[in-house]
Amino acid sequence: MPKPLEVLHRSLNTRVIVELRGNRGYRGILDGYDVPHMNLVLRDAEEIINGEAVAKREKVIVRGDNIIYISPP
Amino acid sequence: MPKPLEVLHRSLNTRVIVELRGNRGYRGILDGYDVPHMNLVLRDAEEIINGEAVAKREKVIVRGDNIIYISPP
Amino acid sequence: MPKPLEVLHRSLNTRVIVELRGNRGYRGILDGYDVPHMNLVLRDAEEIINGEAVAKREKVIVRGDNIIYISPP
Amino acid sequence: MPKPLEVLHRSLNTRVIVELRGNRGYRGILDGYDVPHMNLVLRDAEEIINGEAVAKREKVIVRGDNIIYISPP
Amino acid sequence: MPKPLEVLHRSLNTRVIVELRGNRGYRGILDGYDVPHMNLVLRDAEEIINGEAVAKREKVIVRGDNIIYISPP
Amino acid sequence: MPKPLEVLHRSLNTRVIVELRGNRGYRGILDGYDVPHMNLVLRDAEEIINGEAVAKREKVIVRGDNIIYISPP
Amino acid sequence: MPKPLEVLHRSLNTRVIVELRGNRGYRGILDGYDVPHMNLVLRDAEEIINGEAVAKREKVIVRGDNIIYISPP
Repeated sequence: MPKPLEVLHRSLNTRVIVELRGNRGYRGILDGYDVPHMNLVLRDAEEIINGEAVAKREKVIVRGDNIIYISPP
Repeated sequence: MPKPLEVLHRSLNTRVIVELRGNRGYRGILDGYDVPHMNLVLRDAEEIINGEAVAKREKVIVRGDNIIYISPP
Repeated sequence: MPKPLEVLHRSLNTRVIVELRGNRGYRGILDGYDVPHMNLVLRDAEEIINGEAVAKREKVIVRGDNIIYISPP
Repeated sequence: MPKPLEVLHRSLNTRVIVELRGNRGYRGILDGYDVPHMNLVLRDAEEIINGEAVAKREKVIVRGDNIIYISPP
Repeated sequence: MPKPLEVLHRSLNTRVIVELRGNRGYRGILDGYDVPHMNLVLRDAEEIINGEAVAKREKVIVRGDNIIYISPP
Repeated sequence: MPKPLEVLHRSLNTRVIVELRGNRGYRGILDGYDVPHMNLVLRDAEEIINGEAVAKREKVIVRGDNIIYISPP
Repeated sequence: MPKPLEVLHRSLNTRVIVELRGNRGYRGILDGYDVPHMNLVLRDAEEIINGEAVAKREKVIVRGDNIIYISPP
């Protein structure tokens, strides 16, 4: 059975969608993460608010406890 | 007595409904999970917002702390 | 003195009302639970939103941290 | 100095008011509790929503983390 | 330096204001507390909602995790 | 690198702004704190709601988990 | 793989954007942080509410549990 952190690990260096609480999210390349918090590092990321891209971030640290889901696009 | 994690384990490779906080949810095949966080991996998943399917995700990692319930459909 | 988990244990295989945050709930037969999270397994369950039954679930895993109270009906 | 759990213990078998988050509450006889979660068992309980009694429960398990305060009436 | 729990201890048997989340609060005599939760016991307490006294409580156990601040009046 | 708790320690006996969740805050002299909760003791404090000073408190214990930030004014 | 805390460490003494819950944020120079809470010290910081700079803070301690993300601008 693939565990969530294994799937996350295999997503390194690929583009992922990260949905956060509060109708926010990111699309970017998964650069790193930590365990057990699931804090993420994304690069070349687009910040999404209410479905619209509002900013580009070269690098961003996203705290795990706001994350609803992480998905390859 | 069937424990929640045993029931979750027996649901592997079957289609489940995952209801999240904020009127969101997923329908998809349960691919994996972890203990004790109950983070899930779903595949062939439909994202549901306010009762409507809004996106398809080949694979998605859902953080356990947003989950309200998990049910076979 | 009857402890909460003892009362929960004695409710196994009986019909219970589970009230969740967000005006949601379940009526169903308590099939199992775990300690200390108080995650539940219900069977033959009705999902209740704002007081109305909206769906039937043969089996459902309810995460304990959304539960407000559990009561025999 | 009377500690909160001592006061709770002395309230066993007396009628208490339990105020919960979300303008909900219970009036009932305190039958049991656990430590450290402060989950409660009430019997002969009235459920109160927005100040009005909406249901009677012979027995109810209330999760401690929704409790704002507990008081003898 | 006076630590928060020392200041709380010195407030025993004096009248305090306890502000809770959700525009609620209490004014009453601090009878006891516990560590580390900062659950309180108040006596001769007035319950305040939106700035108005709505009820008197001879004794009340207030859960610490709803407390915003505690102050002598 | 100055750690947050070192900066907090150096702020003892100076006037600080404490911003809390829910558009609340305090301006007062930092009298004490604890670790790791970051509960604070303020003296000669003004309570601020929606940007307006609504009350003066000679002494107040502020629970750390409601704090957004602490700043010298 | 760059871990979130390594990326945070490399951001010391650079200008970062810190997005907080509740449509708040800061732009400032990262002066310090702690582990595991990810509390931050910022200097020469601008406080942002709903996208507008509302105040300047020479130094500010930001509690980690309100942080959504941290990004170099």
